[in-house]
Amino acid sequence: MTTANRQLLVKSWPNGLPTPENFEIVESRAPTPGDAQILIRNLWLSIDPYYRHALGPRFVGTKFCHPGDVMMAVTLGQVVESRDPVIPVGSHVTTLLGGMQDYAVVGGRDVRLLPDDLFGPGKLPLSTALGVAGNPGLTAYSALMVHAKASPGETFLVSSAGGCVGATAGQLAKLMGLRAVGIAGSAAKIAWVLEKAGFDACVSYKSNSFKEDLAAACPRGIDINMEHVGGEVLKTILPLMAQNGRIIISGLIDQYNKDVAPPSPNWGVIVSKHLTVSGLRVFNHFDLMPRFERLVADLIAKGAFVYEEDISEGLEAAPGSLARVLTGANFGKSLVRIAEAA
Amino acid sequence: MTTANRQLLVKSWPNGLPTPENFEIVESRAPTPGDAQILIRNLWLSIDPYYRHALGPRFVGTKFCHPGDVMMAVTLGQVVESRDPVIPVGSHVTTLLGGMQDYAVVGGRDVRLLPDDLFGPGKLPLSTALGVAGNPGLTAYSALMVHAKASPGETFLVSSAGGCVGATAGQLAKLMGLRAVGIAGSAAKIAWVLEKAGFDACVSYKSNSFKEDLAAACPRGIDINMEHVGGEVLKTILPLMAQNGRIIISGLIDQYNKDVAPPSPNWGVIVSKHLTVSGLRVFNHFDLMPRFERLVADLIAKGAFVYEEDISEGLEAAPGSLARVLTGANFGKSLVRIAEAA
Repeated sequence: MTTANRQLLVKSWPNGLPTPENFEIVESRAPTPGDAQILIRNLWLSIDPYYRHALGPRFVGTKFCHPGDVMMAVTLGQVVESRDPVIPVGSHVTTLLGGMQDYAVVGGRDVRLLPDDLFGPGKLPLSTALGVAGNPGLTAYSALMVHAKASPGETFLVSSAGGCVGATAGQLAKLMGLRAVGIAGSAAKIAWVLEKAGFDACVSYKSNSFKEDLAAACPRGIDINMEHVGGEVLKTILPLMAQNGRIIISGLIDQYNKDVAPPSPNWGVIVSKHLTVSGLRVFNHFDLMPRFERLVADLIAKGAFVYEEDISEGLEAAPGSLARVLTGANFGKSLVRIAEAA
Repeated sequence: MTTANRQLLVKSWPNGLPTPENFEIVESRAPTPGDAQILIRNLWLSIDPYYRHALGPRFVGTKFCHPGDVMMAVTLGQVVESRDPVIPVGSHVTTLLGGMQDYAVVGGRDVRLLPDDLFGPGKLPLSTALGVAGNPGLTAYSALMVHAKASPGETFLVSSAGGCVGATAGQLAKLMGLRAVGIAGSAAKIAWVLEKAGFDACVSYKSNSFKEDLAAACPRGIDINMEHVGGEVLKTILPLMAQNGRIIISGLIDQYNKDVAPPSPNWGVIVSKHLTVSGLRVFNHFDLMPRFERLVADLIAKGAFVYEEDISEGLEAAPGSLARVLTGANFGKSLVRIAEAA
């Protein structure tokens, strides 16, 4: 193999929000797979807020991308060469280890093999395997199926309701017979959440009357909060939590860009309201993916489920796309397309 | 009824730790029960740290005992007069509404009726119905049976291990096949926790090597932490929590005496370690009491269970006893005896 491999390398760790100057594109040769490995050609990069953790010494422990490293990304790729008998050449896979580059060598065990009968032309678009039918969707599904301990009629609140996780969670909550309330930051997102995704209510965290609006949208309190934001949003939510409420934290975007841990709400509220607060890392729920991806494919085919994608084109667009998800400027699942499917 | 009723009234809200000067004893007449009510003669007062919440404007919402009110207390009493057909005269009850006074009128539905076959001479001492066989014991039991989601061999850590809840929890954990590790504050408590209560390890939070000692006592990390303290103790525990760990908070003694909420640990650790943090209010688990009190009676009769009581005598002793539980100076369940059983 002497195929050229364009890679987005980390050039420097950002001070706050990442900018294009923190990265550089270099060209090398595509690597060769060893035993039990495969070579994939990346078609899509998933852009997720938690990548920010990799770019500098943070207060939450993580693996870092140092200057000179390929920038991390979950990717969707097509298998070009395989030395793992389970992964056929030509098949499509997603992997946490793809990185922001044209080609990657990964272990055959480190990929999710997409079922041909679910993904492809006339079926689910490949890109959805990184979004609504991928890890973000599975995050929402495992929040509701594993963490929420929901009862019919309970109020389910999700922040970032216009994002892929939030919109999926709210729609699943409705299908389970819950009252779905969203928090979003723009009029366009709120309109979409209400009219397309079918939430019962959606309020703006940017409004001066956020606190009152949220209380009015949750007249019997909040039974379940799927939290992605933290900070002032979480502080507003906590007094409205019902007794025996559940808070599922899958991210704290508010603090991803901060160098030191900001003050967190006092843990006393967990006792006084008899709450259960659980952290959700989707990596712990990968066993549910085969069931979930089939469910979503079925729901979308029936027209019972909507999703949005925020697509940028080309490796050069990745740093800007990352900055957008960190500020909430995206609308729907953020993706960068770096090649067309064969 | 013209029986004299000595009552401990709140005189003023304390600034920090309560002192005897914040209370006064007055004598009135014992009240008369109305329909569906009972008159009880209090024999024992339970002294619990959370009473501090009632004595002043705190950052955790609660019901207050204002100056002039009878000071709150969970009590054990004997029924003197009954207008509730379910509660016989002469029976023993515990109630959250007894207060620090000789006599109280409470609703027949607001008491726990002690089974005659479990409590009394030759059986469980009456006082245990406020301790190891009462709400503190039930707190430990529901932590392990409802909240902990324990697997055999996991490491269970409990702070205040020399206290009634902690000692009960550690012993139940051992019976469930867990590794029980305690935190306590004195050499005497640590020796008792290890030698009498049979914990696998116990470390002092007052030691300069607390962090290292705790890490050594939990070589595979902490799977379950039953937390009563918060503050620096919780800060030391969090980095040692295992992935998928569970933290059960039944109290945060460290902050009960503070007027404003102290900084709490950042909630990000809940996500990064995939923790489940649950608040435990024993009032939500009263349905388990009949099963629990019988279990404890059986274990104590078999000699498989130990407990300590920290007994003071007379209503005058109550303020001092409350200050002692707030500073950890007590050893075992704190009780004030204000009358002998008939």
